[in-house]
This record gives sequence, C-alpha cells and structure tokens, in this order.
Amino acid sequence: MTQTLTHAASADIRERATKIRLACFDVDGTLTDGRLYYDSEGRESKAFHVLDGQGLVLLRRAGISVALITARNSKAAEHRAADLGVAVFTGAKDKLAQVRALCEQQGIGLDEVAFMGDDLPDLAAMLAVGLSVAPANAHAWIATRAHHVTAARGGEGAARELCDLLLDAQGRVDALLAGDAR
Amino acid sequence: MTQTLTHAASADIRERATKIRLACFDVDGTLTDGRLYYDSEGRESKAFHVLDGQGLVLLRRAGISVALITARNSKAAEHRAADLGVAVFTGAKDKLAQVRALCEQQGIGLDEVAFMGDDLPDLAAMLAVGLSVAPANAHAWIATRAHHVTAARGGEGAARELCDLLLDAQGRVDALLAGDAR
Amino acid sequence: MTQTLTHAASADIRERATKIRLACFDVDGTLTDGRLYYDSEGRESKAFHVLDGQGLVLLRRAGISVALITARNSKAAEHRAADLGVAVFTGAKDKLAQVRALCEQQGIGLDEVAFMGDDLPDLAAMLAVGLSVAPANAHAWIATRAHHVTAARGGEGAARELCDLLLDAQGRVDALLAGDAR
Amino acid sequence: MTQTLTHAASADIRERATKIRLACFDVDGTLTDGRLYYDSEGRESKAFHVLDGQGLVLLRRAGISVALITARNSKAAEHRAADLGVAVFTGAKDKLAQVRALCEQQGIGLDEVAFMGDDLPDLAAMLAVGLSVAPANAHAWIATRAHHVTAARGGEGAARELCDLLLDAQGRVDALLAGDAR
Repeated sequence: MTQTLTHAASADIRERATKIRLACFDVDGTLTDGRLYYDSEGRESKAFHVLDGQGLVLLRRAGISVALITARNSKAAEHRAADLGVAVFTGAKDKLAQVRALCEQQGIGLDEVAFMGDDLPDLAAMLAVGLSVAPANAHAWIATRAHHVTAARGGEGAARELCDLLLDAQGRVDALLAGDAR
Repeated sequence: MTQTLTHAASADIRERATKIRLACFDVDGTLTDGRLYYDSEGRESKAFHVLDGQGLVLLRRAGISVALITARNSKAAEHRAADLGVAVFTGAKDKLAQVRALCEQQGIGLDEVAFMGDDLPDLAAMLAVGLSVAPANAHAWIATRAHHVTAARGGEGAARELCDLLLDAQGRVDALLAGDAR
Repeated sequence: MTQTLTHAASADIRERATKIRLACFDVDGTLTDGRLYYDSEGRESKAFHVLDGQGLVLLRRAGISVALITARNSKAAEHRAADLGVAVFTGAKDKLAQVRALCEQQGIGLDEVAFMGDDLPDLAAMLAVGLSVAPANAHAWIATRAHHVTAARGGEGAARELCDLLLDAQGRVDALLAGDAR
Repeated sequence: MTQTLTHAASADIRERATKIRLACFDVDGTLTDGRLYYDSEGRESKAFHVLDGQGLVLLRRAGISVALITARNSKAAEHRAADLGVAVFTGAKDKLAQVRALCEQQGIGLDEVAFMGDDLPDLAAMLAVGLSVAPANAHAWIATRAHHVTAARGGEGAARELCDLLLDAQGRVDALLAGDAR
C-alpha cells in the first residue's frame, strides 16, 4: 500500500507509533487552526475539521484511546468531543499531570502515549511521552522539540496525520480500505 | 472557447463527463473546506461557497440532477440545499446505497453518475460510479483512487470545477457566456 | 510616491481609472472570500474585510460614489453597507440594469463606472462599464474578460486594490499619507 | 537558544525591543486576519488567535503592559481583552492620542512603546513610537513605513512574533522554556 504522508515519518517515529495505546490532543492550534471567534455577545466559537474527526473515530475503533486536553474552558471542545465519542479534559492547566492520571487509569506507561500540541502549555507533556507530534503551524519553541512535525496545519488535518501514522504502524489501514472496518 | 480548468481534464475524463445525468456531492470537505464550527452553545456551522452554488444551479438548469449526500445529520446542509433547490440526503451512512436508490428512481445506470468526495465514507460510492472526482484537499486514500482530482480545494470552488467539466463536456458553456441561459 | 500594487496596473487601466465617478462591487466572492456560513438554525453569515471597508470609506471621502450590488437577498450585506455608509442593492438579478439606473440618477455615463465582480451574474455589467476588475479568485470565465485582475483574492483586500487604484489615478494618495484627509 | 523568528529581526530592531515597557496592538488585521463576520441579524464576529493570546499573557507576566487600541466599537475585542486580562480601548479615532495618554499614565516615553498596526489609522502612532511593527498582510502604505514586518499574517501569529521579539530581547525566553515561568 502506498501511504504518502505516513511514509514520510522516519523509522524511529514508526517504531514509537507501534506502541501507542492512548493518543492525546491539545485543542486550540492542534485540532483547530488556532482561531478563536468572538461575537458581539461574547460567544466563542472554534472550527474543528472533518478529516480529524474521522481519524479520531478510526483510532477508537482500532482500540486506541483518545483524549482531548485543553487549558481553556471550552464548551465548544466539549460538544465536539461528545459528537465523536471521545474523552475531553478542559481547564487542564497541568497537561502532563492529566496525562499521568490517564496512564494510571489505563494501566499503561508514558511510552505508550502520543501527545500532539503546538505551544508552551503542551511542552512538558510532549517531552514526557513516547511520541510527541506538532502540527506544521506549531510555535518554533515546540516544533523544534517534537519527535515529528506534520505536513498539515492544525485544524486542517494535522491530527488525522497522527491518526493515520498510528493506524498504519499498527497494520490497520488495509482493512479500512477494503471496507472491513469502515 | 478557452476553458482553462476543464481543459486540464484528460480525454477519458471528458468522455465520462458526457454521460452524466446525476451529480452527487459529499458535503464536509467537498462542498465545504472541512471546517466544523462549534459555538459555546453547541451550535454547528459550516461554510459553503458561492462559486459552487452557482455551479449547482447551472447543472440543474442544464437538466443534470444534483444531490448532496452526507453521513452527518446537518441542518446547515439542509438549509443550503433548500436555498439552491437541490436534493439533500443527511445521515446517509451507506452512500453507495443512496446513489443506487437515486439511479433506480431516475432510471439511469451508475455509469451516468458522478460522485465527488474526500474521505473513507465516500470511497465505495466513488469506486462504483462513472466519474469519481476528489477535491485537491482530499485524503490521500481517496485522491489516489479517484478518476480526477480538482485544482481547487473543497469549499473553495472544487465542486464548481466538476460542474464546469460537465457543462463543458455537454456543450453548454458557450450559451452561458453568450447570456442565453444566464 | 511608491505604490506597488497600483503601479502594477497598466497605463490603459490607470487612464480608465481617472474617469471613474461610481464604483460598484459584487458582494460574495468579491467583498467576501465567497464563503457562505450556514448554522444549524439556518442563519447565514459572511466575512467582509477591514482593508476593503477602509478603502470604500476613502473613496466616499474622495467624492467617488460606492454601491454594493448583489443578486442574493443578504441581510449581512445590508448591515455591512450601513456600517460603511455606502449604498447597497440586494436581490438585484439584473446587475447591469441596476448600474444603468445609478448612472441615470447620477447623470454619468457607463464609462465613468467601475464594476468589480467574480462570476457569471457579473459579466454583463462588467462588459458594459469603463473599468471592469476581477479579484484573483474570480471564475476563469470572468477573469479572462475583465480589464484588470487584482493580486489579492476577494474578501482579502481585492476591493481595496481597486480603491487604491482609483485614489492613486485621481491624485489622492499623497494627501492621505500626509494625514490631511485621514 | 535558537529562536528562528526573532533572530530574523535586525540588531537595530532588537535594540529598540530592549526598551519597550508598553506594547500596543491594533485589532482588525493585526490581532485578527481582518475578516469581519456579519450574520443575518447584524451580529459581528471576528477571530483572534490562540498563539497571540499566549504571547500577550507572557508579556504581562514579564512586566510589559499590553493595550489593544481600535477605532471600531467592538464588543468582541472587549470580550477578548477581558479573557486575556489586558487593557482595551475601542472607538479610539486618534490612536496616537491614546498612546500618549497611556505613556503619561505609566510615566514612560514614546521610545518605550511598541505599536503594531496594518492600515492608515495606525500610521501616525507607528511613526511616533520606539518600535513599529506591521503584520505580513499590512497595507503597503504601512508596511513600507514600519521598522519591522513580521513573517506571520495578522490573526495568524503576527502579534506573537512581536511578543517573542520583546521577550527574547529582554532575556525572558530561557526561563519560559525551562518551565520556571510557564
């Protein structure tokens, strides 16, 4: 199978990807393009991407846990997570602590965790986990410290690239394309 | 007449385009850029494009049926379809089944159907129809399996390219530009 | 004065620009990027650009009339026009007829009108006026028939380029930069 | 420390950056991409960026004052400023007068002020302060008169570049990356 995007990942990245049991995603700038829409009445909106949503659903079906972890209090993120059937933790000022708590619950190690983030509040978690990924638009402070940087920007399919990488490294793609698990 | 975009389509694609009586479009990522806007109260929005809307109206006037087919339940898609006067099928988990049902209703074959989509849920339908088209931003799994990939991205005129291709292959463009059918 | 964008316009375009007393703008795809946002309750939104708004205000102050002309019924366009203090005509199926009516009111000829548009419903008006301009993203059918195509895309400053061209051709820019008319 | 973006700034710019005690930001086109979203009921929205918000918060923590200054009356800007805990001045037709008033309040000189803006209403303030910065998308009239133009566009991280430049020039980045001030 030719799988352009994930073949761009190095052998080391693919090796790390084979072990992942939990995939954690920052929200703003990672699952979105970082834009925070404010209207004249103070309501806030943000845009998720359908490609990413499909990827998170495929991860879940493949038995990989998914968690959205954001420092902001965001009703929008809660609604999106509910639509996709994935866990969400808002107002998480210490993201690494949240990741550790999830590891304990699932009985897994930090090397079995992937974390995707784009800015300073993500850094501690990204330095601690088995696979850290930054979207193409990540702050330079973060991109230079991640194991892998995606070709796509946050909110435009960056998260899907990580999903595809995990699915491919764990041998799940051929069945998806054959329609067995669609 | 010089028609840059559709001249980029190969002779085979144009041959397929001459036969099309029904044009089906996925919504998210195809008629939109894939962004799903969530506000703090759980309301969802998405952005359609005026170029695409004009194209769908021109198809209708040229006697080619148009259907929007989406797996999501989307009131926004229903409103957009109503504005354009085209059919819409939401919550369609099996898109190929929906296409087959439409063929039966219209008394046409799958080779007279065009389907434009960008991700896994579109694949079965795209592999079955006479002309499958993916927007520039389609997932690689889909783009590599489509007959044609547009220059424009979904939600930015990709659907209009398919409309123009059909109108041009069926000899409708000169009259449009002369104002006879504007 | 060095004025990069408008210097890119040819001498013929600048000559045409010196005569303009009325500048008409299509809305969707010209003053916006063409996106039509629909929410789950059927509300429609669109995005105008602050650079364009500033340009329209500067035109008005320089004594050049401004009119937004759209075939759609758009409350959003009406609100935007009201904010800027410019005329707006919605539901205008025949844009050329609308332009002719404005010429009669102002006692000017079609050669004193500029029209900026991006798609088929704009074509008749664009072929009739003294200066026709298309944004970078215009449909190829229109771009190839306009006197001038802007560097910027619709909704991202394309209209401002036309404003600057008119202001520059009519000798208004130095005073603006000196703060006399700011 | 390797800090790509701010190393692109010249020695003169870095010298100016060391003195800044107050950073002022225009809103539309600078903290946003310039898009003004109007809905059918006249509500206006605009999109701020999470990277910029993080930068403004880091400036505040480093003891540099932050003010948003906009000529428009914008409830959205007021809500965004409240979320970030920074000052906001809306309806400020004379931005330079507003900057002078802030200098008086803080007991600082104009050479200790940075101003970031993108269009004509920002020009007088930008010509008066110690460090003037324009986003990549600024109008040519402004970009050519600013001390520095960012790589990023307004609303996509341009303001963060100025924040990083100030933090870096004032020796604050290593501590941030070490987690001491995160």
